[in-house]
Amino acid sequence: MTRTIRIVIITPVAIDLSFWKPQIDRLCRAGVEVTETSLLAGPASIESRVDEAMAVPGMLAAALQAERDGAHALVISCMSDPGLDALREAVTIPVVSVAQVSMATAASLAHNFGIVTVLDRAAPILRANAAHCGYERRYVGCRSVEIPVLEIHSRAREVQEGLNRLALELVEREGAGAVILGCGGLMGCAGEIREFLAKRGIAVPVIDPLPTTVSFAVTLVEQGLSHSRVSYPQAQVKPYKGYEFVDQMDKLLL
Amino acid sequence: MTRTIRIVIITPVAIDLSFWKPQIDRLCRAGVEVTETSLLAGPASIESRVDEAMAVPGMLAAALQAERDGAHALVISCMSDPGLDALREAVTIPVVSVAQVSMATAASLAHNFGIVTVLDRAAPILRANAAHCGYERRYVGCRSVEIPVLEIHSRAREVQEGLNRLALELVEREGAGAVILGCGGLMGCAGEIREFLAKRGIAVPVIDPLPTTVSFAVTLVEQGLSHSRVSYPQAQVKPYKGYEFVDQMDKLLL
Amino acid sequence: MTRTIRIVIITPVAIDLSFWKPQIDRLCRAGVEVTETSLLAGPASIESRVDEAMAVPGMLAAALQAERDGAHALVISCMSDPGLDALREAVTIPVVSVAQVSMATAASLAHNFGIVTVLDRAAPILRANAAHCGYERRYVGCRSVEIPVLEIHSRAREVQEGLNRLALELVEREGAGAVILGCGGLMGCAGEIREFLAKRGIAVPVIDPLPTTVSFAVTLVEQGLSHSRVSYPQAQVKPYKGYEFVDQMDKLLL
Amino acid sequence: MTRTIRIVIITPVAIDLSFWKPQIDRLCRAGVEVTETSLLAGPASIESRVDEAMAVPGMLAAALQAERDGAHALVISCMSDPGLDALREAVTIPVVSVAQVSMATAASLAHNFGIVTVLDRAAPILRANAAHCGYERRYVGCRSVEIPVLEIHSRAREVQEGLNRLALELVEREGAGAVILGCGGLMGCAGEIREFLAKRGIAVPVIDPLPTTVSFAVTLVEQGLSHSRVSYPQAQVKPYKGYEFVDQMDKLLL
Amino acid sequence: MTRTIRIVIITPVAIDLSFWKPQIDRLCRAGVEVTETSLLAGPASIESRVDEAMAVPGMLAAALQAERDGAHALVISCMSDPGLDALREAVTIPVVSVAQVSMATAASLAHNFGIVTVLDRAAPILRANAAHCGYERRYVGCRSVEIPVLEIHSRAREVQEGLNRLALELVEREGAGAVILGCGGLMGCAGEIREFLAKRGIAVPVIDPLPTTVSFAVTLVEQGLSHSRVSYPQAQVKPYKGYEFVDQMDKLLL
Amino acid sequence: MTRTIRIVIITPVAIDLSFWKPQIDRLCRAGVEVTETSLLAGPASIESRVDEAMAVPGMLAAALQAERDGAHALVISCMSDPGLDALREAVTIPVVSVAQVSMATAASLAHNFGIVTVLDRAAPILRANAAHCGYERRYVGCRSVEIPVLEIHSRAREVQEGLNRLALELVEREGAGAVILGCGGLMGCAGEIREFLAKRGIAVPVIDPLPTTVSFAVTLVEQGLSHSRVSYPQAQVKPYKGYEFVDQMDKLLL
Repeated sequence: MTRTIRIVIITPVAIDLSFWKPQIDRLCRAGVEVTETSLLAGPASIESRVDEAMAVPGMLAAALQAERDGAHALVISCMSDPGLDALREAVTIPVVSVAQVSMATAASLAHNFGIVTVLDRAAPILRANAAHCGYERRYVGCRSVEIPVLEIHSRAREVQEGLNRLALELVEREGAGAVILGCGGLMGCAGEIREFLAKRGIAVPVIDPLPTTVSFAVTLVEQGLSHSRVSYPQAQVKPYKGYEFVDQMDKLLL
Repeated sequence: MTRTIRIVIITPVAIDLSFWKPQIDRLCRAGVEVTETSLLAGPASIESRVDEAMAVPGMLAAALQAERDGAHALVISCMSDPGLDALREAVTIPVVSVAQVSMATAASLAHNFGIVTVLDRAAPILRANAAHCGYERRYVGCRSVEIPVLEIHSRAREVQEGLNRLALELVEREGAGAVILGCGGLMGCAGEIREFLAKRGIAVPVIDPLPTTVSFAVTLVEQGLSHSRVSYPQAQVKPYKGYEFVDQMDKLLL
Repeated sequence: MTRTIRIVIITPVAIDLSFWKPQIDRLCRAGVEVTETSLLAGPASIESRVDEAMAVPGMLAAALQAERDGAHALVISCMSDPGLDALREAVTIPVVSVAQVSMATAASLAHNFGIVTVLDRAAPILRANAAHCGYERRYVGCRSVEIPVLEIHSRAREVQEGLNRLALELVEREGAGAVILGCGGLMGCAGEIREFLAKRGIAVPVIDPLPTTVSFAVTLVEQGLSHSRVSYPQAQVKPYKGYEFVDQMDKLLL
Repeated sequence: MTRTIRIVIITPVAIDLSFWKPQIDRLCRAGVEVTETSLLAGPASIESRVDEAMAVPGMLAAALQAERDGAHALVISCMSDPGLDALREAVTIPVVSVAQVSMATAASLAHNFGIVTVLDRAAPILRANAAHCGYERRYVGCRSVEIPVLEIHSRAREVQEGLNRLALELVEREGAGAVILGCGGLMGCAGEIREFLAKRGIAVPVIDPLPTTVSFAVTLVEQGLSHSRVSYPQAQVKPYKGYEFVDQMDKLLL
Repeated sequence: MTRTIRIVIITPVAIDLSFWKPQIDRLCRAGVEVTETSLLAGPASIESRVDEAMAVPGMLAAALQAERDGAHALVISCMSDPGLDALREAVTIPVVSVAQVSMATAASLAHNFGIVTVLDRAAPILRANAAHCGYERRYVGCRSVEIPVLEIHSRAREVQEGLNRLALELVEREGAGAVILGCGGLMGCAGEIREFLAKRGIAVPVIDPLPTTVSFAVTLVEQGLSHSRVSYPQAQVKPYKGYEFVDQMDKLLL
Repeated sequence: MTRTIRIVIITPVAIDLSFWKPQIDRLCRAGVEVTETSLLAGPASIESRVDEAMAVPGMLAAALQAERDGAHALVISCMSDPGLDALREAVTIPVVSVAQVSMATAASLAHNFGIVTVLDRAAPILRANAAHCGYERRYVGCRSVEIPVLEIHSRAREVQEGLNRLALELVEREGAGAVILGCGGLMGCAGEIREFLAKRGIAVPVIDPLPTTVSFAVTLVEQGLSHSRVSYPQAQVKPYKGYEFVDQMDKLLL
């Protein structure tokens, strides 16, 4: 197995993500090349089911392009797992997503788990996704630092300390046996949370979704596994009438 | 309550539906005006999760336009209930969908239910939607006449007889206590199935989704009810980068 | 469909309900006649499973009489849905009940729901009925104003304000996405609760069970639907040895 | 503990059961007196939810009388457990019922269980009761000899052989790990089924509900246990308007 | 049935239990002989899954010996039910265990239940066992006096008062409908808890696991019932390579 | 991350496994060393819960020794996941097991899954373990070639063809969306099954448990994750009274 495994992360936003490239580069290792793509069309961020709906067409385009360009597996980087079913129908290479894989990992290591994230607004979507993935009874809830995604880096210390404190609360008040970081922008914060908890005598897994999911994608490629065509039948190819209504929608929304 | 209640049916396909208008007109009654809209952009038919994903942006545009034009409630006419969550976030008037309401009705009248439909391909999506709506244990399965939607009208007799026979099978072999028509094109076929079963001593509800759902939408308007903003928070308004990639996607898909 | 649809409400108490007729009359509309019947025998109010058991024979008599007199559908007006299964076995016209239909409506519009009612005593029966109807995981609980049914009218303002406050609590503390009125005597209180919540920025459906259920019954009649004979087989007709023990029971109970 | 424990079996039919007394007498043992009572009013047999509803008032009278007469525990002898909740609200001594206790016993000894009974008509009620008692996933179904209750004794050999064969089918085709007799009239048939299965190398518990439930009732008395007043609040005593409508109901039903 | 029924209690600890014999003797009655055995090898107490694992081989030896010596049924006396599945595969006489039987009894008498015990450490194991036995939704939690098992007797008054208070909390704060004693050393404490609650107007079953389970075992013997060979196939007999590593493990552990 | 990750596979049998070393060596890769250990004491093979019980003490010794010797993670190689909970309590390095990880992987790639294995005897244990891991509703069943483990190598062609056929049956008759190899001796058979299905137009993941689980263990080490001490508290260290009864047990069993 001397070939290089190429993993493409699809981040469902139509913005330039080059500022984030150093973080992604750290996910590469010998024999594994990891790149990230954002969307040609879609929202600037995912904050609602409407945003998700406006992202999935662009995600489909990105997934088809990545498969055509030789990717071996795709990772959706968004904690509501938007478009996972549709992308699986559209491409043959394995498609996985960060929430799904993180929750499966947490459930393998603990009886239940909670999520620490940035904004409380995500709470109902996280709960719905936990139920959709089969973890309704094992998800104990989420807690938020209430700091907007765009301020994560300028307020990094405040964010980290908030996450430490909220993780402790999830364990002590909700009985969480594991903690998942609930936002891609928090990548890298897991280690300090673990140390913070360890100092208080609490040893629980704190899961950083993107690296964990990239590793899982690599395993699938190595093992020759992909999603099931019985569960996700190949979508029949057909043309889609053009989206020239987009301007109209923005007017309607604004 | 002398005002006219205006119900708009959103059928998630980007085709001309005027041939279908006489069927829709039959759903009107004193004080209730029912109209149907299709999409400015999207697929010609819904046959996969990819098709659904390509339809929802157009559905959002149609929903926002209908609300602006004075609709009192919206009905999604597709048995996989595409875009239901997103549309609820986008508009304030009640949004309901045919599968969701038909299954709630069946579950109110019988211990369990099955679906008769046109193509077996829909089976996994129908099952997934039944589970999503909370009816995993009450859904006994679906059976199909295996006739394409576009041939329903030219092969009407064959379709009806197939439905009769399959409904009987659902009751006798799967123990179904109720039957739901699983495709909008089958509207109007419920009565003969009921008679066919009744002659064999079987009295079970056979649900025609669109008229039943329109009635439910009228009830919601009359009762002043809409979907919950706790469960479906108002989506924040934001611009979406344009969909000029559409041409590219068609090339990728074809 | 120019015939008048006749809906009969069966209220499972053996008292004179004429004082309540103006409320019932408001449920009538063009083409729909709504009347209410109480029992020839049974309890003065439903406060326990014993009361329910003593009501069902009288409900059966009332249902059989109403069907014989030409009713098109029956609505049981009691939030524990007493006798629903038995009445469905006994008559052919559709039988629905207020709690069952209200919970299905709430579950169609929100992820979960709670109930505001008069007395805390009903809590275990409401929970058991929610589970029986398949909503165990979606029912978040009930809250009570602790005012006896017979005092609702003399203390109307106090009742309404209590309901407003309790509905707010259900949303804020239990995360309820919808609210159901838990007692027939509260009919008409939903509108002010909705306004009270709306002023606090909370838009959730507040369901008034009896009008909602009557509308659902009308829909069933219009759609030619009734309960399933597979799930509720026709009861075989047989004589019942007389109830002359009733006097004895009153002595035993008192 | 030298007092005699008095167990009263309430069989919910308004017929003379003296022909059955020798069977009941066999349930007595040192320190345990077992008697049976039938109803002053109610059906001649339980074959529907209507029959159940018409039996429960008489069961309440019988239960109150038995408690007043010094019974230490009550056993409801009917596989749909009619009136169990109401009787628990009405009396303080423990009330248990044959299906509930038999299913708990089967579930304690095997992963799942099935029922052999007389008539297929009982199937939906048995399934509903299994779910109500919390055994939805462990109940694999029932099979019937299709011989009316009244003919059990005249066709005893045929009944026994049918039960043997059906029990074998439940094990071999449905994977049942235990078998329950589904009708009081089958009391005493468990032993031969066990031998029949044992000869074929199958050792599964075959539960005879009435003796097993009487033993459980004795255990409760010995241990000072009764049903919970938190789950089954004491019913408030109140008069019930008389049942002079009974004649009318028989006319309506016939 | 004049033979004496011989019940052997297997307490999964490798210590001398003769000090406890008077307690066990009280479980005997006419026709029922109850004895207790401890292990030739294993832990001094069960405080972890590791302890359980180290006890089960010794429990298997004790069970095989007891069956060979003529026991009619075996009762495992430990609230995590260690070895239950394995012992059922190994012997033909019925094997039951205290937690399994106590929870089935509580679930038969109340909608839900809680446990009062000695140390909080047992909480996750009790919860896991409740789920394993099928009571996940009915178990409301446990509360502990935080007194080590070895100090129960010297601090008996303190223990009893703690249990009284905790049982009250389980009912009032968790809504428990029944209470189970969660440690064998608490045998005999149920009566005073019941009285304590009764004085506060609360009538709930308080279950003393060992006597209740012994009674259930007697019922099984009387009824000719044992665990299912379909669910618990007879284990094939084979030699096990010797455990000379035991010394090494103690070194590893210490 | 230049250190070598050391994974130790614990195979719960007390036999010499050197013949199997070449298979294990293939699991090594750059930076990952994989070795296997068997038990000093325990059964020659795992065929029952009794065998499992007799293996876990030896597994604990092996796990403690491996951790002391510098292992970074442990993999239990047995499809009933024996001792998983106990080993997690005993050691700090991550412990995972093949069935648990394979089922999580299958559930991530398909709606449901089945297992192909060697002997039908394992069926109830596989089902119980699927339920224990939270996959009760997603496990569609197992099918067996009915060839003893010891004959797998001498009858390799027959085994492979049987597995191909059974996997096809699981997909076509049970609707399985994924297939798991149910026995360690089948390692390496997944590829041909996938090809066999692919030729018939069926693309489903076929999971080879041991390599997949080893990869998952490597991911855990790389990510700094281990099992939760909240869910699996550290077992308190204590001496265990010696197992000199072992000889006696062999006599009892034989």
